[in-house]
Amino acid sequence: MNNEMKTIVIDAMGGDYAPSAPVGGAVLALEKHKDIRIVLTGKEDVIRRELEGKTYDKERLIIQPASEVIENEEESPVDAIRSKKDSSMVLGLTMVKNKEADGIVSAGNTGAYLAGATFLVGRIRGISRPALTVGMPTGTTPTLLLDAGANMDCKPGYLLQFARMAEIYYRALYGVGKPSVGLLNVGVESHKGNELTKETYGLLKEAEDINFTGNCEARDVFTGEFNVVVTDAFAGNILLKGLEGAASYMMGGLKESIMSSLRGKIGGLLIKPYLKSVKSKLDPKAVGGCPLLGVKGAVIKAHGNSNETAIANAVTQCLTFIRAGVIDEITANMKKEAEVKTNG
Amino acid sequence: MNNEMKTIVIDAMGGDYAPSAPVGGAVLALEKHKDIRIVLTGKEDVIRRELEGKTYDKERLIIQPASEVIENEEESPVDAIRSKKDSSMVLGLTMVKNKEADGIVSAGNTGAYLAGATFLVGRIRGISRPALTVGMPTGTTPTLLLDAGANMDCKPGYLLQFARMAEIYYRALYGVGKPSVGLLNVGVESHKGNELTKETYGLLKEAEDINFTGNCEARDVFTGEFNVVVTDAFAGNILLKGLEGAASYMMGGLKESIMSSLRGKIGGLLIKPYLKSVKSKLDPKAVGGCPLLGVKGAVIKAHGNSNETAIANAVTQCLTFIRAGVIDEITANMKKEAEVKTNG
Repeated sequence: MNNEMKTIVIDAMGGDYAPSAPVGGAVLALEKHKDIRIVLTGKEDVIRRELEGKTYDKERLIIQPASEVIENEEESPVDAIRSKKDSSMVLGLTMVKNKEADGIVSAGNTGAYLAGATFLVGRIRGISRPALTVGMPTGTTPTLLLDAGANMDCKPGYLLQFARMAEIYYRALYGVGKPSVGLLNVGVESHKGNELTKETYGLLKEAEDINFTGNCEARDVFTGEFNVVVTDAFAGNILLKGLEGAASYMMGGLKESIMSSLRGKIGGLLIKPYLKSVKSKLDPKAVGGCPLLGVKGAVIKAHGNSNETAIANAVTQCLTFIRAGVIDEITANMKKEAEVKTNG
Repeated sequence: MNNEMKTIVIDAMGGDYAPSAPVGGAVLALEKHKDIRIVLTGKEDVIRRELEGKTYDKERLIIQPASEVIENEEESPVDAIRSKKDSSMVLGLTMVKNKEADGIVSAGNTGAYLAGATFLVGRIRGISRPALTVGMPTGTTPTLLLDAGANMDCKPGYLLQFARMAEIYYRALYGVGKPSVGLLNVGVESHKGNELTKETYGLLKEAEDINFTGNCEARDVFTGEFNVVVTDAFAGNILLKGLEGAASYMMGGLKESIMSSLRGKIGGLLIKPYLKSVKSKLDPKAVGGCPLLGVKGAVIKAHGNSNETAIANAVTQCLTFIRAGVIDEITANMKKEAEVKTNG
């Protein structure tokens, strides 16, 4: 059953480079994966124009017309989901809800997409809050950081569930029996932190099913010491955007100082390819996308500035997520938790 | 009056490289500034041994013997301040409290130092919470980020006071009439953020004395767009340590890929000095130290891994802080606020 054809929706109108990136990404993904169908949701004429001159397997590319678009600048992302019922995003999420598709990829409005996934696709029974999960580069397997965008104000219990979900996802992806879990915090000592992390520390320590290895300082998310790091989405966002800023600042500073002398210019030419490779390691486009863990479908958020390669990578990630059976495992885990609570 | 001799305490037992870094830093600072006295607090025999063979103005270096040391690994920093009354840190802070010294520099236990400064030196009347302030590199004048370490859980009113204090400090340092103030947040839109930032946004917008220019995303702390950025110490710590991690990760990755080929090795040799200069820009040791704004004395926290140059830089910063009259201005501002409240 796991090798059967899967259907993945791509929101053709979402992202900074829509429709060219999602439509181009669909063509790349169909070429790479012979065992998927792609549904492109969006304005039919726009999609058809983008497809002109492209070679692809027409049997496996379906267009689902949608007359509306959820923009990046919606005043209320939640209202947009409610009111734009014929948008590419809402139609795509509804297809996942109705099991007409196995998963979805969108580079569109993050707030609307996360709210829409929770409302339409729905939470797995027992999950308080779904969480967006990003893979941090470490040199070896990525460290999964969550929540990277969905829940700005969290309770300790949410973070405990984030840890359980990410552990399952990590195990499915990399086959590690007991992934190590860390808590993003301001120091390694158990008494460090704010009210949220101090209380969460206790919960994680008590949870026998979790391999909690302690607090993770922000500087250590790259060391690979932790397989999973949990946090609220506010701190997660500050960390991720800070890294982005540091990379730009350092690369900019290096370029400027290199260009200030002949010696620097020659050295700079020689190391240019290496600089590019280091920068690309910190590049979210290379990673593909971020799954929203905790909903009843494979919902992948691609970065807003994704190009067609990034969209195709996100489709690959969506397919891996589906084939690994992550949702069934989280569902089973939540059932077990509920039984323990009822019987204990 | 502003040119008279000033007395600055250096905690000789604080920091990863104590006593050599603080004692060496004292000698460097005395050489650089002819208008200061330095008081070294700590174990007299240890300090005397460190001073052996060094040339300095003996008239301007005083040793204040202290038999105890507050360690980095104290179980409770607050208890350490209470119980170790004859420690180098407590004696130093007490000298500032008693006006026997104008300011103090320590690279020791941050939690103990901040708690000690608040308890012993005392808060300026009306200030709810003193805040640790760090200068972020921008290419031009630094952006002041606070709170960088003192208050993990903040109320919106605290952040409003942080903005007022930092504005005064920035103006004193750089002579800018109306420094721009930003709020560290997850997006530029006013509705973005967690409960704290959403409420703080409203307070800052209403405060007519503050030049509030909106939310600052973590990637924009280096752009120089904001003179001051306010946040709670949890998010501040995540940002600062994340930057540290990103810098190490990128430099490590670059080194590794450069060393993988002859071309890279030659290029690497040529750009080595430029790499160093970029890294040093992100290096907290170069900045010197961070003032704790809101207490009745010039209390400067030097980074734990400060070497003697960094300690000397922190002394320079302490002297600048004293001469700029920052405390008097914050005190006057708080009085004005109180009057407005009483009369309005």
